[in-house]
Amino acid sequence: MSTAGRVIKCKAAVAWEAGKPLSIEEVEVAPPQKHEVRLKILFTALCHTDVYFWEAKGQQPLFPRIFGHEAGGVVESVGEGVTDLQPGDHVLPVFTGECKECTHCKSEESNMCDLLRINTDRGTMLNDGQSRFSKDGKPIYHFVGTSTFSEYTVCHVGSLAKVNPAAPLDKVCVLSCGICTGLGATVNVAKPKKGSSIAIFGLGAVGLAAAEGARISGCSRIIGVDLNSNRFEEAKKFGVNEFVNPKDYNKPVQEVIAEMTNGGVDRSVECTGSIQAMISAFECVHDGWGLAVLVGVPNKDDAFKTHPMNFLNERTLKGTFYGNYKPRTDLPGVVEKYMNKELELDKFITHSVSFADINKAFDLMLSGQSIRCVIRMEN
Amino acid sequence: MSTAGRVIKCKAAVAWEAGKPLSIEEVEVAPPQKHEVRLKILFTALCHTDVYFWEAKGQQPLFPRIFGHEAGGVVESVGEGVTDLQPGDHVLPVFTGECKECTHCKSEESNMCDLLRINTDRGTMLNDGQSRFSKDGKPIYHFVGTSTFSEYTVCHVGSLAKVNPAAPLDKVCVLSCGICTGLGATVNVAKPKKGSSIAIFGLGAVGLAAAEGARISGCSRIIGVDLNSNRFEEAKKFGVNEFVNPKDYNKPVQEVIAEMTNGGVDRSVECTGSIQAMISAFECVHDGWGLAVLVGVPNKDDAFKTHPMNFLNERTLKGTFYGNYKPRTDLPGVVEKYMNKELELDKFITHSVSFADINKAFDLMLSGQSIRCVIRMEN
Ligand SMILES: NC(=O)c1ccc[n+]([C@@H]2O[C@H](COP(=O)([O-])OP(=O)(O)OC[C@H]3O[C@@H](n4cnc5c(N)ncnc54)[C@H](O)[C@@H]3O)[C@@H](O)[C@H]2O)c1
Ligand SMILES: NC(=O)c1ccc[n+]([C@@H]2O[C@H](COP(=O)([O-])OP(=O)(O)OC[C@H]3O[C@@H](n4cnc5c(N)ncnc54)[C@H](O)[C@@H]3O)[C@@H](O)[C@H]2O)c1
Ligand SMILES: [Zn+2]
Ligand SMILES: [Zn+2]
Ligand SMILES: [Zn+2]
Ligand SMILES: [Zn+2]
Repeated sequence: MSTAGRVIKCKAAVAWEAGKPLSIEEVEVAPPQKHEVRLKILFTALCHTDVYFWEAKGQQPLFPRIFGHEAGGVVESVGEGVTDLQPGDHVLPVFTGECKECTHCKSEESNMCDLLRINTDRGTMLNDGQSRFSKDGKPIYHFVGTSTFSEYTVCHVGSLAKVNPAAPLDKVCVLSCGICTGLGATVNVAKPKKGSSIAIFGLGAVGLAAAEGARISGCSRIIGVDLNSNRFEEAKKFGVNEFVNPKDYNKPVQEVIAEMTNGGVDRSVECTGSIQAMISAFECVHDGWGLAVLVGVPNKDDAFKTHPMNFLNERTLKGTFYGNYKPRTDLPGVVEKYMNKELELDKFITHSVSFADINKAFDLMLSGQSIRCVIRMEN
Repeated sequence: MSTAGRVIKCKAAVAWEAGKPLSIEEVEVAPPQKHEVRLKILFTALCHTDVYFWEAKGQQPLFPRIFGHEAGGVVESVGEGVTDLQPGDHVLPVFTGECKECTHCKSEESNMCDLLRINTDRGTMLNDGQSRFSKDGKPIYHFVGTSTFSEYTVCHVGSLAKVNPAAPLDKVCVLSCGICTGLGATVNVAKPKKGSSIAIFGLGAVGLAAAEGARISGCSRIIGVDLNSNRFEEAKKFGVNEFVNPKDYNKPVQEVIAEMTNGGVDRSVECTGSIQAMISAFECVHDGWGLAVLVGVPNKDDAFKTHPMNFLNERTLKGTFYGNYKPRTDLPGVVEKYMNKELELDKFITHSVSFADINKAFDLMLSGQSIRCVIRMEN
């Protein structure tokens, strides 16, 4: 019997308050409304952004809430006006959508959709300003339009990328956020040439994905920069072949890199969120042609500061959001790159736990042990 | 009788001391040495940079000196190893050269030649560290490898662009510096699309040339920004069709422009040298795709400062030097654009004086009356 049009009761990992372990509960998931889709999540992964908003240290807390934004699932039913997707389609939910109608979606260059751009403060659906999740009649808030820590969830159709049904969702689910962010920062924005040099600041999941982009692009020198030298051993698996810990020098790291590379690297990608790393990443690129890409999310009061001559000497600075990928347009192609074995994803997935053990995924991330821990919804 | 290999006696406008009127003197010009070329200057124009180093307020003074770096001339004789040019060729000297052999010259992107990059401190030739100019046996210093305020001068072959001999040198001489700088900032670096919007900060010669680039590129909204509203009337001739004087508003000009353009301009080009204008030019471009180009030369202690989120929201900032033109490779093509009537140059040349009246060109520039004043060497 079809569940379409009816409320579904299923298990979800609910965050009742900031920083407290998630609790697996039976919740009710309402049917999708106009331009919405309900999907069954099969695999979801954990990203720092989930942890950050669960800790709710810097922001207005919004609880109870269902977190989760890296996932793979199957469409269960679709709401009014949804023509692109149908039950059974395999999809990846993405925290920043693509309406295909706004000036950003129509621009070739931007992926910052006006309608579906990430909004971490909103906990409800756009159509009616209400949540589709509830327990005992009380609403539970959504998170960035995805809320994938639930067996079923409801998303705007613009937040779902339809992908090849042959692709293993337990692997490609990690493309929903961090991996595409770092990968795209390199391949879509930095665009290094074959044989060129690149510095990657920060060797977390995003930086390692930037390094994977450098490997795919054929960079010959991939210089990893991290304040934590424990990151270096693992980074070797991602093609990083030179290492710099700024703490090992008593001069600015941009000078260290300029000396190593006869004036500077061809490209750099900053994946730390540290303002000092952003400035160093810019100042370490070569004059004449160097290009630096900022990825990390800075603090509210940070100021990027440099001498303007660093620009006049023909350096370029760009920032990127989700690696400049348009989720619906571009993700199917990224999945194909994985299927063709051009792109390696398995090495990012260091751990896997059952849904019942979701809090272990938080522990693994907080202790810095995992790059990505995939959570299996079904077993 | 050929003058090749002999000292030539000719007239030059010598700056004996900082800020004092130039004096036309008979000087001796030695023959060109290895990789050098001696040329007869027919027309030269005056640029702010000449005035700046003649005033010598901020720098180590180097006198006596022969200034001048925008010019057109004819090769008189060539030194050892010069194969690209021969007597009779028409050339434009350029303050920043192209050796064709260094990593910058070999890079497709850079025009910042390692060997011949602008050097305002050096007053001698590279080959022997001596000057080719003298009077009564005492050397007179060169300026940026061009020293075009002389009937004859000696330049490194890498500082000379060979151009179509049919091109009128009294017009194309202005391509040696400011006009190419602004034009290239738009067409080579900002690369606006047809129908797009652009803001030009500073409506001096460089800014007007950036506007000419915007006109050629088919920009539909060309917004001129200047603290001096007297610049606006003239700027209309250069296709500027909207005007903003930051002094007329009590909010930052980047906000004024964002409101005029539904979120920001597609491109901006800063041609002022003011750090505040640089920051505004960056912050007034649209998120998602906006690109700002810095051209103005800042003060030594200036700091470019902005919130890093302005980058993360997919804005790009670049600087350029001489509009990213490689002088020998690219100037012949720019001259052809003038010959085809694609590029308008005549409107930049507001005044013309004889060599004897060269000090009038300084007065016209200092009083802000001229865009370019061309100095006729022969009559
Ligand atoms: N722009 C986007 O669309 C987007 C999407 C996802 C994540 N992010 C951001 O990317 C950044 C990286 O994410 P992650 O999950 O890989 O984080 P992570 O915490 O796992 O890794 C960051 C690494 O940077 C290192 N680091 C910190 N400061 C440094 C410095 N000054 N110099 C060198 N190394 C330094 C840390 O030691 C750590 O290894 C974060 O700021 C995150 O918010 C951005
Ligand atoms: N990068 C290069 O290769 C290169 C080459 C030549 C010149 N330049 C530089 O380009 C700049 C412009 O040269 P120019 O000859 O046109 O100068 P200019 O002095 O004729 O014109 C500058 C204009 O900017 C305006 N201005 C100053 N501060 C402003 C502000 N905060 N906001 C708006 N307008 C402001 C002035 O009123 C003036 O009209 C200079 O800094 C010059 O050094 C650079
Ligand atoms: Zn959109
Ligand atoms: Zn994420
Ligand atoms: Zn060179
Ligand atoms: Zn000049």
